[in-house]
Amino acid sequence: MYIGGPAPIRVLDQHLYTAPLPHVATRQPMHSFFIPDDVRRMIHARQEATYANPGISAGLPSEVHVYHSLVPLGNPNPSISRVYHHPAPVYRANSTVDGNVYALRRIEGFKLSNEAAFSAVEAWRQIRHANIVGLREAFTTKAFNDNSLVIVYDFHPNSTTIADEWLSPEAVNRRRQSVQPIPERIIWSYVIQIANALKAVHTAGLAVRTLDATKVLITGKNRIRINGVGILDVLAFDSNTSVHLFQQDDLLNFGQLLISLCCDFLQPSQHYSAGLDYIGRAYSLDLKQLVGYLLGKPTALKSIDEVLRLAGPRILNELDAIQTYNDALENDLGAEVENGRVARLLMKLGFINERPEFEMDPQWSESGDRYVLKLFRDYVFHQVGPDGKPVLDLSHVLTTLNKLDAGARSREKIMLVSRDSQSCLVVEYRDIYKCIESAYR
Amino acid sequence: MYIGGPAPIRVLDQHLYTAPLPHVATRQPMHSFFIPDDVRRMIHARQEATYANPGISAGLPSEVHVYHSLVPLGNPNPSISRVYHHPAPVYRANSTVDGNVYALRRIEGFKLSNEAAFSAVEAWRQIRHANIVGLREAFTTKAFNDNSLVIVYDFHPNSTTIADEWLSPEAVNRRRQSVQPIPERIIWSYVIQIANALKAVHTAGLAVRTLDATKVLITGKNRIRINGVGILDVLAFDSNTSVHLFQQDDLLNFGQLLISLCCDFLQPSQHYSAGLDYIGRAYSLDLKQLVGYLLGKPTALKSIDEVLRLAGPRILNELDAIQTYNDALENDLGAEVENGRVARLLMKLGFINERPEFEMDPQWSESGDRYVLKLFRDYVFHQVGPDGKPVLDLSHVLTTLNKLDAGARSREKIMLVSRDSQSCLVVEYRDIYKCIESAYR
Repeated sequence: MYIGGPAPIRVLDQHLYTAPLPHVATRQPMHSFFIPDDVRRMIHARQEATYANPGISAGLPSEVHVYHSLVPLGNPNPSISRVYHHPAPVYRANSTVDGNVYALRRIEGFKLSNEAAFSAVEAWRQIRHANIVGLREAFTTKAFNDNSLVIVYDFHPNSTTIADEWLSPEAVNRRRQSVQPIPERIIWSYVIQIANALKAVHTAGLAVRTLDATKVLITGKNRIRINGVGILDVLAFDSNTSVHLFQQDDLLNFGQLLISLCCDFLQPSQHYSAGLDYIGRAYSLDLKQLVGYLLGKPTALKSIDEVLRLAGPRILNELDAIQTYNDALENDLGAEVENGRVARLLMKLGFINERPEFEMDPQWSESGDRYVLKLFRDYVFHQVGPDGKPVLDLSHVLTTLNKLDAGARSREKIMLVSRDSQSCLVVEYRDIYKCIESAYR
Repeated sequence: MYIGGPAPIRVLDQHLYTAPLPHVATRQPMHSFFIPDDVRRMIHARQEATYANPGISAGLPSEVHVYHSLVPLGNPNPSISRVYHHPAPVYRANSTVDGNVYALRRIEGFKLSNEAAFSAVEAWRQIRHANIVGLREAFTTKAFNDNSLVIVYDFHPNSTTIADEWLSPEAVNRRRQSVQPIPERIIWSYVIQIANALKAVHTAGLAVRTLDATKVLITGKNRIRINGVGILDVLAFDSNTSVHLFQQDDLLNFGQLLISLCCDFLQPSQHYSAGLDYIGRAYSLDLKQLVGYLLGKPTALKSIDEVLRLAGPRILNELDAIQTYNDALENDLGAEVENGRVARLLMKLGFINERPEFEMDPQWSESGDRYVLKLFRDYVFHQVGPDGKPVLDLSHVLTTLNKLDAGARSREKIMLVSRDSQSCLVVEYRDIYKCIESAYR
């Protein structure tokens, strides 16, 4: 027997979630009702990277300042960092203050000689930028049984660096074999994101000082963030050098980073002009001009503003791309937003139905509220087809649950049949709605 | 009796979903585990606007070309449009070709005199831009019992126009009472989005020709899109006028749009210089300069590129804001994506448990697979506290369901107790996992 309501049950599609709107409907229609696999994988990989405990915390202190549950990220015993001139391992850790996860950069064997070295930290704390890894705080500690400086950053799970992504021997080999340089689109995207970050930093009267391929994180789809800001301001505290000189260094480093991405054949000893010629041939003249400007002699007029002027209309492409990605994300969210509601409703029903200890309760008698809910559960899940086989119709489940969820005033009727098929109840959705409400009162 | 596993049950937080990462954790921590209310409301309003049928389709044809289920958007019988010089109602409609929802702009009483008038439509179809409402196709029809031109656009549900949002008498009055002009931040955001769209249009050798406050849609959080592109190219087909002149008109219209937003006191008859003075006082000199340039005399050199140069570093703020919004959306998606998994698992269990027709089935005997699932369901939902009251612990439900979902090889044991408390089973999660799998085989 197929226990249907008064209206004939139409066969619906196997989803009740909304379809994407045309302007984002470029994907395969079959897949567009669910969140795309790559986004789901990205989200899961991030959650895994945030919460996984690989059990490699041996030898680490259980607490450092307000942080606990340290897990090393990357090599736990690195050699001396080329950039920081100290061993500088990184840990993931949880804060006891706000419960969030942070990345702790530890500079081993650092002894603070001048309290003023921390003055830049406060300025960096103020900088919140989409292309900079936010600095939270810095402190010295003996928790590692040495003198260490610890600088706390926002944690971006499952991120990699530009160096790992593009400049590792494997990546370089792969490009050589396919004779494909890094696409110009990606280079310009990096140019604009780094320039955007530098503009914010230089405007605040600071300098990055460590702009290097190993210190630029790739934290998501084509999104990069400058990492390690503020460390050299503490490590190599120098109140005598004008920040303007450090800013000029940033521009030079920016140029070197770009030329190393575009021309992986270039040896550090070679003059960059060979690289520029190659960029002019393999990429566009605009890019050659920009890199040439960055690598040119520092002058009083050389500034990040001029770099942005040279990037010019390419910024618009970037703007366009990010807005389009935004549309896709809003659309994905629209598909998933109903799930939470359905899950909560199912859990509500689960708490009520079939509780053994209430079997003798009058509420469970054949006229009680809970009995209605039990029959409704049967109606939702235990439909049987004409061939006597169970009907596994997700759309029936979702339709009825959605109607119940929106049913506070719904007068739509359904017929619920008792298990022995001897009696039936005709109830409105608002009655069932009331039954659930009263169960939780 | 509290039916616990061998390990003591820790009281967890009332969520197992992942917390936001620090760089997006600016919201109240309590709320950040769920999708924020404003995003949820936005999504629901869009879905409502896409699927609601207000039953006001009387008098409309049931089919127009490949479109059906027409619903008028706005006034179904508008007077002659100031921009198009024809009555121009808009309908929402479903396409029979791809099932998507589109917006149909109908130009009443239009007779095509020259097939070449449609030549621009193909060029517009190629333009896909985050700040332009995409044009899909155009055709003439007698389906409305007259000669109508219909132009099909992407549908952006629940959108409004700049005119409705900022220039309606109520909006102007509200601003006058609070003596607050439209914030400069919003004006610049509009400047950059419109300039970005114009750049794409002019580069493609086209002109918008209808840049007007009533023809710019606000389709989301601070996102605008130029609407109605291509209509005048068909309506007022003119192969003798150079597109360069129309592009100059776009720049003038852009300036007029901005001055009407900044200076709502300005009468159409007044010279714009009074408005410019006001902008210089109430806003920044940069904005005054930009609007002055747009309203200045057309010259061969006046172009959208120069406008973008004048907007300069403000583009970066826009880039930064959109990227930050992106981070928030990715985070929201992370919270909701788990709900779908939980909902599907609960539905799977719902299909299996308590099926009356299988009560005599050997699978349901006290050693069968389904019996284990029944006891597991009791374990998940029917916990009882020491005081004999039901325990409504969402985190217990989510923990156990998550363990089951990830339990294909999990050797973690739980003790399931029969309803009469006379016997108990110790099972591993992988056993329960196998029971569910085999039920669906």
